[in-house]
Amino acid sequence: MTTQTALADLQTLPVPPEVLALDARDPLAHKRGDFLLPEGVIYLDGNSLGALSRRVAARVRGVTEQEWGEALIGSWTLGAAQGRDWMALPDRVAAKIARLIGAQPDEVAVGDSTSVNTFKALAAALGVAPPERRVLLTDADNFPTDLYVAQGLSALLDGRFELRRVPAGEVGAHLGADVAAVLLTQVDYRTGRCLDLAAISAQARAAGVLTVWDLAHSAGAFPVELNAAGADFAVGCGYKYLNGGPGAPAFLYVARRHHDRAPVALSGWMGHADPFEMARDYVPAPGARRFVTGTPMVLSLSALDAALDAFADVDLQVLRAKSLALTDAFIGWLDPACARLSLELVTPRGHHERGSQVSYRHPQAREVMAELIAAGLVGDFRTPDILRFGLTPLYHSFADVYRAARGVQTILEARA
Amino acid sequence: MTTQTALADLQTLPVPPEVLALDARDPLAHKRGDFLLPEGVIYLDGNSLGALSRRVAARVRGVTEQEWGEALIGSWTLGAAQGRDWMALPDRVAAKIARLIGAQPDEVAVGDSTSVNTFKALAAALGVAPPERRVLLTDADNFPTDLYVAQGLSALLDGRFELRRVPAGEVGAHLGADVAAVLLTQVDYRTGRCLDLAAISAQARAAGVLTVWDLAHSAGAFPVELNAAGADFAVGCGYKYLNGGPGAPAFLYVARRHHDRAPVALSGWMGHADPFEMARDYVPAPGARRFVTGTPMVLSLSALDAALDAFADVDLQVLRAKSLALTDAFIGWLDPACARLSLELVTPRGHHERGSQVSYRHPQAREVMAELIAAGLVGDFRTPDILRFGLTPLYHSFADVYRAARGVQTILEARA
Repeated sequence: MTTQTALADLQTLPVPPEVLALDARDPLAHKRGDFLLPEGVIYLDGNSLGALSRRVAARVRGVTEQEWGEALIGSWTLGAAQGRDWMALPDRVAAKIARLIGAQPDEVAVGDSTSVNTFKALAAALGVAPPERRVLLTDADNFPTDLYVAQGLSALLDGRFELRRVPAGEVGAHLGADVAAVLLTQVDYRTGRCLDLAAISAQARAAGVLTVWDLAHSAGAFPVELNAAGADFAVGCGYKYLNGGPGAPAFLYVARRHHDRAPVALSGWMGHADPFEMARDYVPAPGARRFVTGTPMVLSLSALDAALDAFADVDLQVLRAKSLALTDAFIGWLDPACARLSLELVTPRGHHERGSQVSYRHPQAREVMAELIAAGLVGDFRTPDILRFGLTPLYHSFADVYRAARGVQTILEARA
Repeated sequence: MTTQTALADLQTLPVPPEVLALDARDPLAHKRGDFLLPEGVIYLDGNSLGALSRRVAARVRGVTEQEWGEALIGSWTLGAAQGRDWMALPDRVAAKIARLIGAQPDEVAVGDSTSVNTFKALAAALGVAPPERRVLLTDADNFPTDLYVAQGLSALLDGRFELRRVPAGEVGAHLGADVAAVLLTQVDYRTGRCLDLAAISAQARAAGVLTVWDLAHSAGAFPVELNAAGADFAVGCGYKYLNGGPGAPAFLYVARRHHDRAPVALSGWMGHADPFEMARDYVPAPGARRFVTGTPMVLSLSALDAALDAFADVDLQVLRAKSLALTDAFIGWLDPACARLSLELVTPRGHHERGSQVSYRHPQAREVMAELIAAGLVGDFRTPDILRFGLTPLYHSFADVYRAARGVQTILEARA
């Protein structure tokens, strides 16, 4: 009962002046007003499902009730001259994502899930790798769907390549002459550990190995520089830091130098050079558009399109600086209590090794997170013992993070 | 000017009593009120994009503003005991579609585009076919994306099978001992010609050939009986007769006898037996759920879920009877004028050979359709010379169809 009582006041818990001062100086503080966050909750799970914004809610109503309901089939081509037609919607969204990941608009294809895009990326990478290189290397602890997709493709290709899983820290040592490509997730979904994309891409390139990066916890969380790093392929998620809505369309990056050689395994009519010509043979559209497969899910894709506008006036270096300041603050506020409360920080303290989340090990992590959520402090649990808190610089204040740190401490003290 | 004037009155054109009598007797007449059709338009393009219904508009707002905006990540599991959670959403939609296609709920997987599902179906079919059968047979005039997907898979598998394209009428003669599977679209998107799914499935089975049916223009247009026909695999579209919204998720049917042997080429975490166990190895979920790949696009999938409720109280035989009566009436009303107006009916007159659309050839089809659409009579043009009119028994009245036939005649007479 003490816990519940203490946490009932979490939203209004007094915040020290030095924390309020951080918010007063925050150049992104005004963005929070764009988001429709529920009352009575501190939501630290934007790394699993980003929050709804006003512009997205309005856009979903508009696309449903006017674009679909009123204009019906006409919306596929309406406004084509201004690039406002549904046919060009994947390209418009691609251009917005390109800026966030350091790519050119024609290097990004939007649509389908991250899993399906991982399949496309791997098939494309293996298709351009020299035939004598037959190993697909990956982190043994990669996000499960990356591993499953690689397994499925490996089985489909009937042994044409071998899936080799090694600890993330040993990937560099395994970039041998038999390796075609390496599939890595930049930010570990459990620990928030961020790999050095530029260094690993350079190392792989030097070894003749193609890189396939999963940016699920990177895009929209901090600037990614794919072109600058010389990365080959990448995929990423629309529903985490991009705030595109549950199951939002994902994206695929294909470096321009691979466009003409990389095979399009999932070759559908929306990636055809002229879909309505209804030609019998597949002729790929220019650039990464060829990797758009079927008809885009317009409702979900429109939500993502509108969500991305939240980034339009955001300097990504400022976004990163705030993300680091938020995660530093959270870690710092909890540090003194960790040992006493059986919390073990598993997120790296070094800035260059950290994404935009903070994770702790706790022996009763599952029960603790259930209790936190019941009290209105929403993070998530990841098996076997991880408490995960996503800090999103677009809609979190330092006051939120202060109260969250206090809330965690209160819950754990009540259990101790 | 004469044309425009005549068509300005199209919506209020007097309808003869015998046509009104047809509407008075229509057991599905009440369904029309569910749909939010725009004013001033007769919409005969539901075979390209089905119309918005009230329940879908309400559901999209609810899922966006409450389920996502308010409950956020909790919606993935909220209401799981009642099967109302997002995790089970693909299964709920699958069960509703199963009824429309003569399948069991566990034989249907929902999500991804029709193109992606075609890839899954073909990979699964080729995976269970005897290895000595190396030909994938298809209609040379199949819907382009089916051909493109087959080409992409063929290239990916590096010649492990040959794609053989023959005229639809000759498929039967090509079901040889070297054929692994046959990919056919039941209803031709240009002509509306409907293949005999039961007869062809039986013939294929007798020849040891697996069937992969594309039901894009079948599901929701008339009853399909996949299990009764002994069909092996099928895919279909959520945004045509199912009215699920632009680019709505598609579906995949896998007959139960193939579940344990058919490979899951696109093996993602949402098709895993226990997604949140985060296991390193892919273990398929029971039944067709294993073919669900990545995180479902919840906004689009919820729209489809709500749209399918329009069928809940509909007897599919009644739906078919009305569809045939509508297409018969449209054909009958235009018949006397066809020769004079250079219209050539390309939709079969035989009921068992017809889907739920009526198509004509016309030498200036593209210009004629543009004129019809400008006048508020929305069908569509398909290259090179097809005027296509989709008649949807859930929201069309006989009065609509009468006025549409008169409208087509008026426009063409003005050009003659």
